[in-house]
Amino acid sequence: MPMWQIHGPADAFGTDDKQALATRITDLYADFLPRFYVNVLFHAVEAQAFYVGGEPAGDFVRITVDHIARALDDPASQRAFVDRCLPVLGPFLTDRGLRWEMHVDNTPFDFWTINGLRPPPADTPAERQWRDDNRPSPWEGA
Amino acid sequence: MPMWQIHGPADAFGTDDKQALATRITDLYADFLPRFYVNVLFHAVEAQAFYVGGEPAGDFVRITVDHIARALDDPASQRAFVDRCLPVLGPFLTDRGLRWEMHVDNTPFDFWTINGLRPPPADTPAERQWRDDNRPSPWEGA
Amino acid sequence: MPMWQIHGPADAFGTDDKQALATRITDLYADFLPRFYVNVLFHAVEAQAFYVGGEPAGDFVRITVDHIARALDDPASQRAFVDRCLPVLGPFLTDRGLRWEMHVDNTPFDFWTINGLRPPPADTPAERQWRDDNRPSPWEGA
Repeated sequence: MPMWQIHGPADAFGTDDKQALATRITDLYADFLPRFYVNVLFHAVEAQAFYVGGEPAGDFVRITVDHIARALDDPASQRAFVDRCLPVLGPFLTDRGLRWEMHVDNTPFDFWTINGLRPPPADTPAERQWRDDNRPSPWEGA
Repeated sequence: MPMWQIHGPADAFGTDDKQALATRITDLYADFLPRFYVNVLFHAVEAQAFYVGGEPAGDFVRITVDHIARALDDPASQRAFVDRCLPVLGPFLTDRGLRWEMHVDNTPFDFWTINGLRPPPADTPAERQWRDDNRPSPWEGA
Repeated sequence: MPMWQIHGPADAFGTDDKQALATRITDLYADFLPRFYVNVLFHAVEAQAFYVGGEPAGDFVRITVDHIARALDDPASQRAFVDRCLPVLGPFLTDRGLRWEMHVDNTPFDFWTINGLRPPPADTPAERQWRDDNRPSPWEGA
């Protein structure tokens, strides 16, 4: 479900950083979602390709997130989610002197497929099976 | 309208694959939309840039789609659309041993322009003209 | 807030073009938003990577925009915003013989953070402070 895209300077994150960040982002959802639902895609931004306030920004990381499996629709839940992200992201961003920005969007559950399978509804035995197995499989009622 | 973005390993698709996939995706909409409404953009993902469940994923293709010209708002229509995509995508993905995931979002019709022109409303003579011509043109009432 | 992503051929825009376009896009919002809210990210599309209507499109620029700080929810406001963009974009696109398309989406205000700070609500003293300073800072009530 969550599709994280992290746009930043090519030298902002080494392979170890990317691995660590991907693991910690995945951990944010691990209590309730299959781990494989979490996609983290790093985009290396070229020089002179990113502008913030009309100024070239070589020290800026922009994170966009699409949520699918769970829709957090009310402001309080949305703020609570952002608050949970801060201790994960801060050490890789703020603490390194990078400026950054993140926003999340909700997208429709039924407009989604993994390996051509319809993901099971939230908190069903089939979803728990996918979580236990950490992989998708056919399920009854799909 | 539909903006398809396909993120996958650089060697997942050759030029012939990309052409064939783009044609078949466009065909999905050809009964009701101008063909030029369909945008298919391939992104070559670098090694160690994509993580699924916190693990590097060199065998994973992620498709994101934005719909604009037609909003499928109910779950049944959304599922039916996804089901129509499966036989198009499967041969390029599942049948090649790639893991994959796709999700679609709806975005507002009136927040959209092509060549600076406002696209005509659905199922109007102007839209049919755009479809017949396979190009945008000024229309009365825009 | 506004996250502009501009996908086009690598040779479509030189550094001066990118700078000028980023400045003018930022100016679109400068009357009411902090300038640093405006992100403009250029993506150089590789050859044979973009298809329009199933045909390779080497002369096509695709702009996607996410709005966060202000949600324009009604068609009239959405059209008015698109109309304001046209004189900014036309000289870099239509006037150079490029085909192009743009669409905008609204995303939730409370799903958003800058440098780990919650952006202040619209038209508050805190937002005006951010605009005057052209940088984020802690504010009372966050």
